[in-house]
Amino acid sequence: MTPLLPPDQSAQTLIQALPYIREFSGKTIVVKYGGNAMIDEGLKRAVMTDIVLMRYVGINPILVHGGGPEVSEAMRRMGKEPAFIGGLRVTDEETMEIVEMVLAGKTNKNIVAHLNREGGKAVGLSGKDANLLVAQKDTRRGDIGFVGRITDVDPGIIHTLTAAGYIPVISSVAIGSDGESFNVNADTAAGALAAALGATKLILMTDVEGLYRDFNDKASLLSEMTTGEVDAMIASGAADKGMIPKLEACLDALDGGVERAHIIDGRRPHALLIEVFTDSGIGTMIR
Amino acid sequence: MTPLLPPDQSAQTLIQALPYIREFSGKTIVVKYGGNAMIDEGLKRAVMTDIVLMRYVGINPILVHGGGPEVSEAMRRMGKEPAFIGGLRVTDEETMEIVEMVLAGKTNKNIVAHLNREGGKAVGLSGKDANLLVAQKDTRRGDIGFVGRITDVDPGIIHTLTAAGYIPVISSVAIGSDGESFNVNADTAAGALAAALGATKLILMTDVEGLYRDFNDKASLLSEMTTGEVDAMIASGAADKGMIPKLEACLDALDGGVERAHIIDGRRPHALLIEVFTDSGIGTMIR
Amino acid sequence: MTPLLPPDQSAQTLIQALPYIREFSGKTIVVKYGGNAMIDEGLKRAVMTDIVLMRYVGINPILVHGGGPEVSEAMRRMGKEPAFIGGLRVTDEETMEIVEMVLAGKTNKNIVAHLNREGGKAVGLSGKDANLLVAQKDTRRGDIGFVGRITDVDPGIIHTLTAAGYIPVISSVAIGSDGESFNVNADTAAGALAAALGATKLILMTDVEGLYRDFNDKASLLSEMTTGEVDAMIASGAADKGMIPKLEACLDALDGGVERAHIIDGRRPHALLIEVFTDSGIGTMIR
Amino acid sequence: MTPLLPPDQSAQTLIQALPYIREFSGKTIVVKYGGNAMIDEGLKRAVMTDIVLMRYVGINPILVHGGGPEVSEAMRRMGKEPAFIGGLRVTDEETMEIVEMVLAGKTNKNIVAHLNREGGKAVGLSGKDANLLVAQKDTRRGDIGFVGRITDVDPGIIHTLTAAGYIPVISSVAIGSDGESFNVNADTAAGALAAALGATKLILMTDVEGLYRDFNDKASLLSEMTTGEVDAMIASGAADKGMIPKLEACLDALDGGVERAHIIDGRRPHALLIEVFTDSGIGTMIR
Amino acid sequence: MTPLLPPDQSAQTLIQALPYIREFSGKTIVVKYGGNAMIDEGLKRAVMTDIVLMRYVGINPILVHGGGPEVSEAMRRMGKEPAFIGGLRVTDEETMEIVEMVLAGKTNKNIVAHLNREGGKAVGLSGKDANLLVAQKDTRRGDIGFVGRITDVDPGIIHTLTAAGYIPVISSVAIGSDGESFNVNADTAAGALAAALGATKLILMTDVEGLYRDFNDKASLLSEMTTGEVDAMIASGAADKGMIPKLEACLDALDGGVERAHIIDGRRPHALLIEVFTDSGIGTMIR
Amino acid sequence: MTPLLPPDQSAQTLIQALPYIREFSGKTIVVKYGGNAMIDEGLKRAVMTDIVLMRYVGINPILVHGGGPEVSEAMRRMGKEPAFIGGLRVTDEETMEIVEMVLAGKTNKNIVAHLNREGGKAVGLSGKDANLLVAQKDTRRGDIGFVGRITDVDPGIIHTLTAAGYIPVISSVAIGSDGESFNVNADTAAGALAAALGATKLILMTDVEGLYRDFNDKASLLSEMTTGEVDAMIASGAADKGMIPKLEACLDALDGGVERAHIIDGRRPHALLIEVFTDSGIGTMIR
Repeated sequence: MTPLLPPDQSAQTLIQALPYIREFSGKTIVVKYGGNAMIDEGLKRAVMTDIVLMRYVGINPILVHGGGPEVSEAMRRMGKEPAFIGGLRVTDEETMEIVEMVLAGKTNKNIVAHLNREGGKAVGLSGKDANLLVAQKDTRRGDIGFVGRITDVDPGIIHTLTAAGYIPVISSVAIGSDGESFNVNADTAAGALAAALGATKLILMTDVEGLYRDFNDKASLLSEMTTGEVDAMIASGAADKGMIPKLEACLDALDGGVERAHIIDGRRPHALLIEVFTDSGIGTMIR
Repeated sequence: MTPLLPPDQSAQTLIQALPYIREFSGKTIVVKYGGNAMIDEGLKRAVMTDIVLMRYVGINPILVHGGGPEVSEAMRRMGKEPAFIGGLRVTDEETMEIVEMVLAGKTNKNIVAHLNREGGKAVGLSGKDANLLVAQKDTRRGDIGFVGRITDVDPGIIHTLTAAGYIPVISSVAIGSDGESFNVNADTAAGALAAALGATKLILMTDVEGLYRDFNDKASLLSEMTTGEVDAMIASGAADKGMIPKLEACLDALDGGVERAHIIDGRRPHALLIEVFTDSGIGTMIR
Repeated sequence: MTPLLPPDQSAQTLIQALPYIREFSGKTIVVKYGGNAMIDEGLKRAVMTDIVLMRYVGINPILVHGGGPEVSEAMRRMGKEPAFIGGLRVTDEETMEIVEMVLAGKTNKNIVAHLNREGGKAVGLSGKDANLLVAQKDTRRGDIGFVGRITDVDPGIIHTLTAAGYIPVISSVAIGSDGESFNVNADTAAGALAAALGATKLILMTDVEGLYRDFNDKASLLSEMTTGEVDAMIASGAADKGMIPKLEACLDALDGGVERAHIIDGRRPHALLIEVFTDSGIGTMIR
Repeated sequence: MTPLLPPDQSAQTLIQALPYIREFSGKTIVVKYGGNAMIDEGLKRAVMTDIVLMRYVGINPILVHGGGPEVSEAMRRMGKEPAFIGGLRVTDEETMEIVEMVLAGKTNKNIVAHLNREGGKAVGLSGKDANLLVAQKDTRRGDIGFVGRITDVDPGIIHTLTAAGYIPVISSVAIGSDGESFNVNADTAAGALAAALGATKLILMTDVEGLYRDFNDKASLLSEMTTGEVDAMIASGAADKGMIPKLEACLDALDGGVERAHIIDGRRPHALLIEVFTDSGIGTMIR
Repeated sequence: MTPLLPPDQSAQTLIQALPYIREFSGKTIVVKYGGNAMIDEGLKRAVMTDIVLMRYVGINPILVHGGGPEVSEAMRRMGKEPAFIGGLRVTDEETMEIVEMVLAGKTNKNIVAHLNREGGKAVGLSGKDANLLVAQKDTRRGDIGFVGRITDVDPGIIHTLTAAGYIPVISSVAIGSDGESFNVNADTAAGALAAALGATKLILMTDVEGLYRDFNDKASLLSEMTTGEVDAMIASGAADKGMIPKLEACLDALDGGVERAHIIDGRRPHALLIEVFTDSGIGTMIR
Repeated sequence: MTPLLPPDQSAQTLIQALPYIREFSGKTIVVKYGGNAMIDEGLKRAVMTDIVLMRYVGINPILVHGGGPEVSEAMRRMGKEPAFIGGLRVTDEETMEIVEMVLAGKTNKNIVAHLNREGGKAVGLSGKDANLLVAQKDTRRGDIGFVGRITDVDPGIIHTLTAAGYIPVISSVAIGSDGESFNVNADTAAGALAAALGATKLILMTDVEGLYRDFNDKASLLSEMTTGEVDAMIASGAADKGMIPKLEACLDALDGGVERAHIIDGRRPHALLIEVFTDSGIGTMIR
């Protein structure tokens, strides 16, 4: 536990957050939660308090999560070896069942319990609930099974929950037209939700500091980019492969009316609060 | 598919349901869904349409489910042999994780998807969501791990959802004071919810016709009992062991203000509709 | 009393109505009630239960009625011989007073009492109440007295009543600019109301099976027509004279945004339910 | 038309009404409308403007009416001679039908049309609408047919209408448990409604100046009485026979929580306004 | 105290006001209160009752006031001599402080107390409250200190207050971008508010009868003018200098959507009521 | 300007405030603002930001202020020498006028402008507005003029304003039964308001550290007292004279249902935030 600041400095700090509280009061912020911040217990707790605090100061935070490592671990326990093609999990029917059990039954409820313990009122959903995320088979990289592309978002249930003070936590599973489940990328889901909700911000928590002009030069971190620059980075091949779905999620969100998208370093404790409530923007902001 | 009735007879049948529609319009009915009706695809679909119809005619149906067989199967796939003491599953930490994944991640979302396909707007919850079901360790039969006894119900999220037209589907997992998960009996959870919601009816779907005066004499089916008679049946040892948690759930609900509790035969297609919308009460009604 | 179906078939029948309940839930359906269905006690009771059922499953039914035979009978009892020109009642001041007394004071309240007995909450109105139907003298067939042409509909009172769960029952009397009463055609009034309310359906109950391609060939019943075909039928003179105001009411309603208009056979018990809740559309549907 | 006052005096007069407008703003006043004020065209128009004005200054006026003379006239036109026993109309089935047609179909709608012409939004009801007035046979004076005694008032529809700005106009017809109609005394109906609505005032419009200590001495007009004094007046036989139902209506209303009951002289133009908005209480006030 | 009219004439007078009550019910009327009507105790009380009466009959009156003479008197008591340039008060910082104390602390609260005594629920505001009136330095006549030109009106607080039944009373002080106070012309403020509120009428109370075609010929009073005529009057120099800000306030209001602007003679008791509730429009109406 | 903390520490500080934000979210806190915190520009700005922050995190802060020094200064500028008897200002009519002008017209609007500049939506009121504070002459210390004792609080306007997001700022002037103004003690007014509003906390800002067991021993500061101990302190004469009205205000508030009353040191920057949002309670808490 961090030693307490003297009370006068604490008060001063609260006051420095006031302009940001004012700015985001009543606004919706969609956070893709993932990476180390989901594994390290200390980081996890920090994220949970950050989210609860955001809710108490009048912001509507929406949490979206995947959970790759936990899925792979559960698969192995069930005697199945995970396989990936082009970064996407090969998802046969049995794998899809495991994905859904892990994401909606374990990871999701675990996050919910943590938020409630910090004083939030969280409700966990998958994209199947109230047809929140509708998808169809993603065949862009051939047939790799129940991997889905989001075709529709019905944000009604999110509005119902946030109006009543709840914090929605959404696992990246979508529903198909025959009621089947699809595994969807959590960054993409977060971007689609942010657009459908008219969110003010989309924040993707990653395990990198942000985007670099030159990936090999850690000193070339970009604190701000335009959508044009992101397009160019993707087109030029300069973007890291693993970063591409995140960049596309940001572009989709901005294209759908979201004001700003952020790629932040989830390894830093309270990265969310620092991004939202201080002058020190962190990571890369795209607009 | 059942052959269609001539339209005039169809109309006549609708009219015969009118007094029941009038009676239950605006009321809450908690249904414990389980047994064969959860396994047989035809029965399952019948239950789903029954629930959606209830919602459309102005009733607030609440579905509570367990999922024992699916849990045992998943355990075996993960190389764990299920064990039971006095009918309760021995639930170590790893088992609890599997219980929760299966109930909240697979069974629950499967029911939700089915309801939505029939035109409902279903939302799946576990007892962890919004602290709906709070439990502590049940030590009445010694320490058998994460088996819980419900100590508190916070029905706020259910009111939020039903007021907005959603059908809540609740898996029988509760939250402990340290955020840990507890496996709770689904009949008991349904009874506790019915009481907390001020429900009009509690309906437990089983794989028997109802209660018998003499368990060995199928002709002694009891269509109606008082709580006093149920107390006596339990005290005398005449009640079937597996039936006792169901009877206790009924007594708790009635004690908590629910008007009527029903033990019905889920093996009969549309048993719910028959119970709610026709003269032919089925199974055993307790009041 | 029709013998009861076995409960399983009853349940099946309710389920078959579900898609229709879903479709019309929250929608407004204007029904012109008249003919034999208003005279025969059995048919009358069937219509009343049909209307109450519609209300309970979430539909807003609006009933509009005339009452020619009762008016003529009352006139004769008062020593006045009814007279008609071109199908329209010659309506001097004294006749108008009788028309209004019979429609608003007898027929209307009789329907209201029947609906309330079946469990509805009905409220009877004439077009004078809250200036619901405003008319001016209809001189298209010369001066035949207080026969009116509707010039304005103020649906405010209908919205107030349906929002509070009431079933409005409206007699076909309108108000003139000097507060005088006008006798208006009930089919026309129903059509005008359906348009003003943005109703989904207009249903005219008649004493015929529907429209025939050839009026003398009962086998030529048309189950569906377009507005163009109806226009043509009127222009060609093929339409039965008594049917023309009904057809015009349908065209006016469709023109005003109503989705479908139906001419159904009120002599068939529960014709309304059959039309609304079964696959077997009956009579003629115009769109 | 009364000559206009100079504008300064008009303003002064409005100001003198202010304390009364303040006092009754948001309150309910039930007015039994009858006698000469219902026959004389000038008086009638004055009552209508008074009622509309009351509504515009924030009062909820409720009008209740009978219509004896019009009923008798209609009966004679239909060849039936009116008969009375103890002041109550002998009401066989045919008479009841005529009573209802005249009151609900003619008198009621006529009042509604007048109020609407003065700028009100009036809605006419009989006691059958929404089961507003429920009655059973009144056998206190032997069997004189469909004369009813009010046993229940369901004021729901009145609250719906007044909340939406409408002026309810109610004819003195009640509904029996089998849906049959009953002729009820309009003063009694007004008193029962005033109690059920928690009205502030009940005002009975009559053709006398008020109550007299000595009926033969016009100088003995009583401007104020207590309920005890009214009880005594009835017990002593000093009360005029025709006045007794009015006095009983007042006592019932006061007993039911109404603050004041007034018997006023409807022959005086704008008697309502004078009673409600000026210092000059007129007639007899009972409390 | 004016002698009371006979009650029948009082009633008649109320009725004559009914068409005006109907017309303005629910509408907003902005009144600039000033001149003799603010000094003479009898006139003052008459204005207060007029405003309270307007509120009780469903109008939303908004009162705007300045208070020049009281300011000058307070300045002299504090040893400062008032100075004016082109009709505008030279307003150094100390003067501004006195202006604000007198208007917002004395005049405003005095009006509020008077309205409350007459039964109103008044709330006093200055343009600083909730940033109601925002201004910047008016340099059109050189630098004469804290004299402001209104640049923005935020009517939110007015809507909050009127929806809850309060009568807003607003002193003519505005706020600058650095939180400093500005002295603004009360007529101008009233016009700007009327436009921002979508008022139906703007009424300026003055110490003249109205506008004259020829200022020296009292017989040339104009009862009605168009905005074009007012423009011409200003352009031609025919308008009295002191009248120009009033005329401009009227033009601004009409330009902003207000239906009618009135310049009335506040020296006449109840001039407001006479203008609003009688046939005798007084003063000059511009549209 | 305090140097900024490193962002990580800022985030940590925000998190440490979370339990307090949770606790007071939706609660009402009445703050008596006075002393040095009202004079020193730095302290003033700190208080304003503290109040705005409280509002943004969901608390309803209500500010009550007096303004003695400014009143005395204005009196002297008008050539009147302030006089006091037993700590109360001798308040003749002219003095009362100055008190009101200064408090309601200068101090109040100045606070409002400051709050709005920090992003609040503040509305200034005196006790005269909407009859918020009603008083009668306080004769407990003889006749010292328009010094009042609060007899009634009508908190309606406060509820209207806080529900719409406004911050009410109230000057300590009350209204008498004849509309006259009374000078009331601001601490007392704050206590009475806290009780009438069912506030959670009353906080009195003073120029002392809190209460001392022994006034001469600065080391004997009491961090917590019970109402019994406060009663005893007053009875024993140990309480500082100037402190007595503050202690009585606290007792009145606690007696009226307020949970805690605090006497804090307004000379410390952000004393409000420190008290409300940190572990370090400051000053003396009474319960």
